[in-house]
Amino acid sequence: MRYLTAGESHGPQLTAIIEGLPAGMELLAEDVNTDLLRRQKGHGRGRRMQIEKDLVAIKSGVRHGHTLGSPVTLVVENDDWKHWTKIMGIEQLDSEEAAEEIKRKITRPRPGHADLNGGIKYGHRDMRNVLERSSARETTVRVAAGAAAKKLLKLLGVEIGSHVIEIGGIRAENLQFETIKELQERSEASSVRCLDEEAGAKMIEAIDQAKKNGDSIGGVVEVIAEGMPIGIGSYVHYDRKLDAKVAAAIVSINAFKGVEIGIGFEAARKFGSEVHDEIAWNEEKGFYRKTNRLGGFEGGMTNGMPVVVRGVMKPIPTLYKPLESVDIDTKETFSASIERSDACAVPAAAVVAEAAVAWELANAILEQFNGDRMDHLIRQVEEHKSYAKEF
Amino acid sequence: MRYLTAGESHGPQLTAIIEGLPAGMELLAEDVNTDLLRRQKGHGRGRRMQIEKDLVAIKSGVRHGHTLGSPVTLVVENDDWKHWTKIMGIEQLDSEEAAEEIKRKITRPRPGHADLNGGIKYGHRDMRNVLERSSARETTVRVAAGAAAKKLLKLLGVEIGSHVIEIGGIRAENLQFETIKELQERSEASSVRCLDEEAGAKMIEAIDQAKKNGDSIGGVVEVIAEGMPIGIGSYVHYDRKLDAKVAAAIVSINAFKGVEIGIGFEAARKFGSEVHDEIAWNEEKGFYRKTNRLGGFEGGMTNGMPVVVRGVMKPIPTLYKPLESVDIDTKETFSASIERSDACAVPAAAVVAEAAVAWELANAILEQFNGDRMDHLIRQVEEHKSYAKEF
Amino acid sequence: MRYLTAGESHGPQLTAIIEGLPAGMELLAEDVNTDLLRRQKGHGRGRRMQIEKDLVAIKSGVRHGHTLGSPVTLVVENDDWKHWTKIMGIEQLDSEEAAEEIKRKITRPRPGHADLNGGIKYGHRDMRNVLERSSARETTVRVAAGAAAKKLLKLLGVEIGSHVIEIGGIRAENLQFETIKELQERSEASSVRCLDEEAGAKMIEAIDQAKKNGDSIGGVVEVIAEGMPIGIGSYVHYDRKLDAKVAAAIVSINAFKGVEIGIGFEAARKFGSEVHDEIAWNEEKGFYRKTNRLGGFEGGMTNGMPVVVRGVMKPIPTLYKPLESVDIDTKETFSASIERSDACAVPAAAVVAEAAVAWELANAILEQFNGDRMDHLIRQVEEHKSYAKEF
Amino acid sequence: MRYLTAGESHGPQLTAIIEGLPAGMELLAEDVNTDLLRRQKGHGRGRRMQIEKDLVAIKSGVRHGHTLGSPVTLVVENDDWKHWTKIMGIEQLDSEEAAEEIKRKITRPRPGHADLNGGIKYGHRDMRNVLERSSARETTVRVAAGAAAKKLLKLLGVEIGSHVIEIGGIRAENLQFETIKELQERSEASSVRCLDEEAGAKMIEAIDQAKKNGDSIGGVVEVIAEGMPIGIGSYVHYDRKLDAKVAAAIVSINAFKGVEIGIGFEAARKFGSEVHDEIAWNEEKGFYRKTNRLGGFEGGMTNGMPVVVRGVMKPIPTLYKPLESVDIDTKETFSASIERSDACAVPAAAVVAEAAVAWELANAILEQFNGDRMDHLIRQVEEHKSYAKEF
Repeated sequence: MRYLTAGESHGPQLTAIIEGLPAGMELLAEDVNTDLLRRQKGHGRGRRMQIEKDLVAIKSGVRHGHTLGSPVTLVVENDDWKHWTKIMGIEQLDSEEAAEEIKRKITRPRPGHADLNGGIKYGHRDMRNVLERSSARETTVRVAAGAAAKKLLKLLGVEIGSHVIEIGGIRAENLQFETIKELQERSEASSVRCLDEEAGAKMIEAIDQAKKNGDSIGGVVEVIAEGMPIGIGSYVHYDRKLDAKVAAAIVSINAFKGVEIGIGFEAARKFGSEVHDEIAWNEEKGFYRKTNRLGGFEGGMTNGMPVVVRGVMKPIPTLYKPLESVDIDTKETFSASIERSDACAVPAAAVVAEAAVAWELANAILEQFNGDRMDHLIRQVEEHKSYAKEF
Repeated sequence: MRYLTAGESHGPQLTAIIEGLPAGMELLAEDVNTDLLRRQKGHGRGRRMQIEKDLVAIKSGVRHGHTLGSPVTLVVENDDWKHWTKIMGIEQLDSEEAAEEIKRKITRPRPGHADLNGGIKYGHRDMRNVLERSSARETTVRVAAGAAAKKLLKLLGVEIGSHVIEIGGIRAENLQFETIKELQERSEASSVRCLDEEAGAKMIEAIDQAKKNGDSIGGVVEVIAEGMPIGIGSYVHYDRKLDAKVAAAIVSINAFKGVEIGIGFEAARKFGSEVHDEIAWNEEKGFYRKTNRLGGFEGGMTNGMPVVVRGVMKPIPTLYKPLESVDIDTKETFSASIERSDACAVPAAAVVAEAAVAWELANAILEQFNGDRMDHLIRQVEEHKSYAKEF
Repeated sequence: MRYLTAGESHGPQLTAIIEGLPAGMELLAEDVNTDLLRRQKGHGRGRRMQIEKDLVAIKSGVRHGHTLGSPVTLVVENDDWKHWTKIMGIEQLDSEEAAEEIKRKITRPRPGHADLNGGIKYGHRDMRNVLERSSARETTVRVAAGAAAKKLLKLLGVEIGSHVIEIGGIRAENLQFETIKELQERSEASSVRCLDEEAGAKMIEAIDQAKKNGDSIGGVVEVIAEGMPIGIGSYVHYDRKLDAKVAAAIVSINAFKGVEIGIGFEAARKFGSEVHDEIAWNEEKGFYRKTNRLGGFEGGMTNGMPVVVRGVMKPIPTLYKPLESVDIDTKETFSASIERSDACAVPAAAVVAEAAVAWELANAILEQFNGDRMDHLIRQVEEHKSYAKEF
Repeated sequence: MRYLTAGESHGPQLTAIIEGLPAGMELLAEDVNTDLLRRQKGHGRGRRMQIEKDLVAIKSGVRHGHTLGSPVTLVVENDDWKHWTKIMGIEQLDSEEAAEEIKRKITRPRPGHADLNGGIKYGHRDMRNVLERSSARETTVRVAAGAAAKKLLKLLGVEIGSHVIEIGGIRAENLQFETIKELQERSEASSVRCLDEEAGAKMIEAIDQAKKNGDSIGGVVEVIAEGMPIGIGSYVHYDRKLDAKVAAAIVSINAFKGVEIGIGFEAARKFGSEVHDEIAWNEEKGFYRKTNRLGGFEGGMTNGMPVVVRGVMKPIPTLYKPLESVDIDTKETFSASIERSDACAVPAAAVVAEAAVAWELANAILEQFNGDRMDHLIRQVEEHKSYAKEF
């Protein structure tokens, strides 16, 4: 399975083509829209999230509510496009328009953004040519693609959820939950996607305070998936390790600067005897681990325990509070500040991370099993689970 | 550029084929052997590191000390192979040998290893068939391939080094250094690859204590690369982000459970105004950042500042101190303990991480520039650096 | 560079996302539409080509007439979609609609089509679920993507054209032309894209006669590209040979059953001394070949001579003249015949083949040179051509 | 499944690493050696084939005669290496050696070889640096990798064979055979791998005559595979068509200039009603085709009929009969002639083509089914065949 995404932040639409979904899988716009909506929520988002409501249209690969096996096209139109047809127009400008455009040229790269490196790389002296694509707006279609992956996982008995562990230095405690369903519901109920209500309240305060200061804060999100079959991924070659692919997926999300699996960096502070998960067996479950410190992976493969992945998102770099930068034309120093922005996008980023992990897990299953038909795939995965239990 | 590695821990040899190195690059066995030796050092390694000295033989792709552009084969023979020809023999066994082999069958999976999942995945009821390949012995040829990548980087003016930041909860402080060369020398001088002598001494103690307790400890390593051209990697598609590829490379190393770029997880505890690196410019250097909290990456691309990557390694799971596990044949619980092992492999892991990062950086440069001839590549990268400075 | 295509024959739209075009390349809808129009022409096409006029809309990756470096989305809407919203609807059917749909189910696989194998593969018992995607309608967006590749090639001094060599056993003779421009113009002027007017007239007759008989005929098309730099592709690994990639591109076109480079199969009937191209040199041109029997490739690389590739297209399998097949539900034999069809699609297939070859050539250039910025790319290719001349 | 090959013609060894073979598959050196030997036979080969006997050593991935699931290393040592240690030495030369080496430098590119383009591409002014890798010697390890693929296919009930159809304009007639086994035996019994004894005798004469004239001749080989499951490959995306991958595999073989599937180029001379294979069904076989003009592929997928692929090999370009070329240093014209060579390598090329096709077919099966364990894979393919029969 593979997908390409396209679209500029203020262009006419975002598009994704997903190639490789099994045939006969139920897939509806609603499945995707639920997650698009979840991505737009969250305390601390700026105005744009309120004015636009992202909705997907499926343009290929689905007929009468089921996939055909052919590539699926997902389109999210930009409601605001009518105001941008000039600035972001596809067609060439006439000389008058071009003259005006030059005045609007953005020559001031923002720290923490792709602006300057992207300008150098692609030869853009109008930074808009970079920022329109480097914008986190792109995560909309990654969430859309992830929603298709989640649908597939669900049909295979794999449930996935996410929540916020930390925002602006405030760490959630007491993160017990019984089922992924509970995790989903409780995180959905919180405007910061935090299971710990007390910590959640403090996070909200911190966001508001940061906003007041014209500043921004980041945080840590966690994704958990239950029900993965055993032995997905492989140790036989370094580039087939599934935990490594999941790590790349997380770090590829805008503003993410780190990732950990299971206890992650804590492992540097513990003894081996405290880190590894003892192996147990009973007739009902087959083999299992007594604990899950390794987050569901051993040897780059799933071990049947829940997959637990955390990622850290840096504070949004677009601040009211000015940072110094340099105009690329005049080479004069200026203070980079902006008029409106999100103070914190961590709750939304949890949804993106969930989508990114879902994609990797679904893809790894499709690489291993025959993913031509959904019904056969379901049967195969069930057989594999029985086989693993009997091992 | 791509490479495949092969070889079992006690098989006749480890092999790597590297495809895509430029022609006309100096490459000698010594270049590789230096790093193989570095990988075998470090306080806390077990006996095997003393008895074997890894040496590479180049078997293709190099003539008279320079690459040909054709695939390069690296072979590291196993000195100990003569003792393993029966247990690990390639040929089929006769019935007598087979009967004896059954007695030697390993049916007891070790917690924290690939044994059990790997056995289920590939249908191995003799765990030796898993552990021979899942062993960290494989990192030998990853270091070898990384050494070729490092040679290429060096010729392009990119210097790379690594050191140990934390072992068993002891964190190095005072990590200033002026040049990568200094980093390399000071970390080489320490038997735990730690720049902070005081912390290094405590790390050694901690390793010895863990060993005495039959336990093991993990830690954090850091890789730093200076001189990368600006704009390597890309923001235009999520799977082209170079920081994400680097993250995958780190997590794909045996026993690594997390990775961070720049300040990494610290970003969850800071304000945006404290995280982002202000942009400055002067005639001599062109654009630069006043700080490097983002570790050399913005928008998934290099920004000209040093690349800073950290990875966490869990304690080695092979312990004297027993962990519970279950025999796959009898389903009886047993205590998994072993006779000899490393108490800490973190110093060696720094060398592996350095190789893994070097590979990704070199590969990204080769994807972007014309890597057919080394001399042309050098000229292109130099021209690109001048261009970026003049931007 | 890579691209994905999506869309069913009677779905709402065809879509392609191209990832990896350089920034700063002029790209207009007109560039693409010219080729879409060329694909729809040709003696022997059925009614559909007349009722629909394919037009592309660029939905991302281009601003004010120039590429941004970000993915380019190309959309060709289906004018006829309004008549198909029920049969090809995305949404689930209510029970009444579903009952009606069952009546429309296609259970009769056509010989020579993907119908039966595709049904078995993906579990479709309504053959429409296969034929909507396996239809040659998909070549529309391959032509669109190829048009972008052709634009890039043109800017690098590579000209490409195509013509029809043979239709229904009638072979064109006297195929001399001076320039690719002449080839383009003369093939464009012929309704069967044949440079030999006499043969062209006979081809038209043959098509008309086949149509009258309710039959169809195939043919051979040739693609020629001039101006490729020397040394694109590589001999160092079998999967890097550019002629092999071109071969795959041709055979991947619907209904193509073979491909040859240069004199191709004629090489089996000649002596080595008649096949190989002698090498010559003069100050003005540098090295060149006196002849071009090998079609511009030696050792899987371009040699600076024109690239010459031919592909054979089988007759369209949808015939008035019935072929026997078997209903998948009843297992009864039936005669597969249809109501309307093209009698010959070879002239259009020449345009598709041209696009497919253009893509591979452009992509190979982008793999070898730095394709971030169009202006830098142009300079590099020019420098490479000078260098090769001075070799 | 993927593989890399490495090694120069006169270097110490050829190496291949195959990654992705299922675990538990029987694989012995004998399996590979049989095909290495077949590749070395054939009327018309030069002296080298007699002096060297290629034998493989398996260096990883196999234990006690069965694959482990980990990468398999195949090594073919060069018996003649002892005479080449200086000319092809890995280590740097001292100044005296270097001076001597300069005298041996090859500055005269041979027409029809990679020499000149390869020299320009990689910056080699000693053509030996090109020809050592571009030599057809590399096909040795392609045959070795193909032998592993053939073993896998055999265990899945897929039999593959090859024969020579045409040499130097002499075409075999009367190519009927009952089983692949018969094809294998009869082609093996002929020193030109031709089933038609009369034509075979003429081919031998033609080869001898060409040799006498200091010339060379090419020909056409055919590969046939029976037993492929239905629906391998896919029509849903152009780059998933299996016939296109097979075409690339054929053209990627040294000296191959074209490929055709089924009736191939004949399709340009026939009516649709004569080209397409009517579909039939009976209880015993399920669906089948009455004929096999399309060579086992419809819609880029296997259709259950035998896969039939032909490739054309040009005459070997290394001739006694001189061709003109130009010295790259002096720019003087010279006559390129050589002292010894094969007059015809077509019979050997059939074995290489067989290996190349086998690889693609095996790989496509592994992409579609779960290839972790050989026993499970066998069961899945059997189930799929039953399912297809019942469709």
